[in-house]
Amino acid sequence: MATHMALALKNSGVEVLQVYSRTFSSAEALASRIGCPAISELDELSGRADLYVISVSDDAIAGLVKHFPLKDKFLAHTSGTTGMEVLNAATSRAGVFYPLQTFSKEVAVDFGEVPLCLEAARDEDYRLLEQLAGRLSGTVAGVSSEERRQVHVAAVFACNFVNHMYAIAADLLEENHLSFDLLKPLVQETARKVMHTAPGSAQTGPARRNNREVIETHLRMLDANPGFREIYNFVSESIINRYKEDNKQGTE
Amino acid sequence: MATHMALALKNSGVEVLQVYSRTFSSAEALASRIGCPAISELDELSGRADLYVISVSDDAIAGLVKHFPLKDKFLAHTSGTTGMEVLNAATSRAGVFYPLQTFSKEVAVDFGEVPLCLEAARDEDYRLLEQLAGRLSGTVAGVSSEERRQVHVAAVFACNFVNHMYAIAADLLEENHLSFDLLKPLVQETARKVMHTAPGSAQTGPARRNNREVIETHLRMLDANPGFREIYNFVSESIINRYKEDNKQGTE
Repeated sequence: MATHMALALKNSGVEVLQVYSRTFSSAEALASRIGCPAISELDELSGRADLYVISVSDDAIAGLVKHFPLKDKFLAHTSGTTGMEVLNAATSRAGVFYPLQTFSKEVAVDFGEVPLCLEAARDEDYRLLEQLAGRLSGTVAGVSSEERRQVHVAAVFACNFVNHMYAIAADLLEENHLSFDLLKPLVQETARKVMHTAPGSAQTGPARRNNREVIETHLRMLDANPGFREIYNFVSESIINRYKEDNKQGTE
Repeated sequence: MATHMALALKNSGVEVLQVYSRTFSSAEALASRIGCPAISELDELSGRADLYVISVSDDAIAGLVKHFPLKDKFLAHTSGTTGMEVLNAATSRAGVFYPLQTFSKEVAVDFGEVPLCLEAARDEDYRLLEQLAGRLSGTVAGVSSEERRQVHVAAVFACNFVNHMYAIAADLLEENHLSFDLLKPLVQETARKVMHTAPGSAQTGPARRNNREVIETHLRMLDANPGFREIYNFVSESIINRYKEDNKQGTE
């Protein structure tokens, strides 16, 4: 994420002063793309930045904050799950800059479409963050640490778990020497549909219709994949449960 | 699905002779859009059609076949799960015409993008089906009953379960007075990614990184929704399990 964000900042005309990473070669690689110096020690951090962005894995944030060498600087992390208060060990000017998107090293991301969830302890810092975010994206939202955690859980369902469903589908097809290409129009249409229809209203499939016969057939077909079978079972029950009342009315 | 298919056939220049439905008003509604007669009894079926398409729910196919009044006609159903042999009670010329897409009554579907999975007992019937399918869609595949069942299970994961993940995400956001709009770019990017990257390689998120701390936090946050918590748990374990070897290497 650090790479995508640093590039997006640079491209929007923001001056990136330095890049630091625990792995110096990573810092150098990114810095050379940005056209700024890489530093190998936190002590080399310039004191004249308006904002210090910490974009590392959740479990590495606290350690970095502990060794942050400057006082009273505006520090922001980019995590969905970690509270803003983790930064209080280094500063009273804490902030969060959380881009709600899935980042892969290889795939370029258009930040203009990425909702940016912002939070800051001080009003004037929030305004700076908002200004910065507005340069990158059309969607900027003030989101508290607690809300951000909720958004992140929701994103795990809507992105990470969705992708795992795709992966299971690809596996099942591959086992039968069929191509995932067959499903691509369906994948696109399923995502397209919820752009304008509430997902709860867009639901289709055997579980939506509480078609026990088809569900039982599918479960038997998944006998050789107990992990997938279990997911099929739990998700189907969850769908049946959600639409129980609808289906009762439908059969009356 | 009958509606979408009949309209697509008509638009591609195929002559639709008659429309039958158990509910005559449904037959009339569709027939008026096609510009052909609706019939209220199966006995009124014309004998001069090249193909009779049965597009009803899975559990209604066998009953319809039992009462099919004509002999030795080319009959095809449109089901993902039901075998072709269900048609043998009415004809030796059985076939299947299975569009791999999610249909909602309200949303128009471009058939040109829909993969059509075809099967027929006789070669000359298969060729007719192929010709017909080629008028509607750019993707036509010969798929056996057994393969079709496998494709259907895969589609349940890639479409129906995916949509349920969206619905859970929307629920979680709504509980916190946040809008599903926030997640829309993420939903689109997640689908877009697997158009050119294998889903297994596109996986991101806490479970992909085996980040137990985040997973535990999320599970606690879902305590009030035991059904969602269970799905979170099972899907996360399934992801962790899939990438176990990767994560071992990552920490070495």
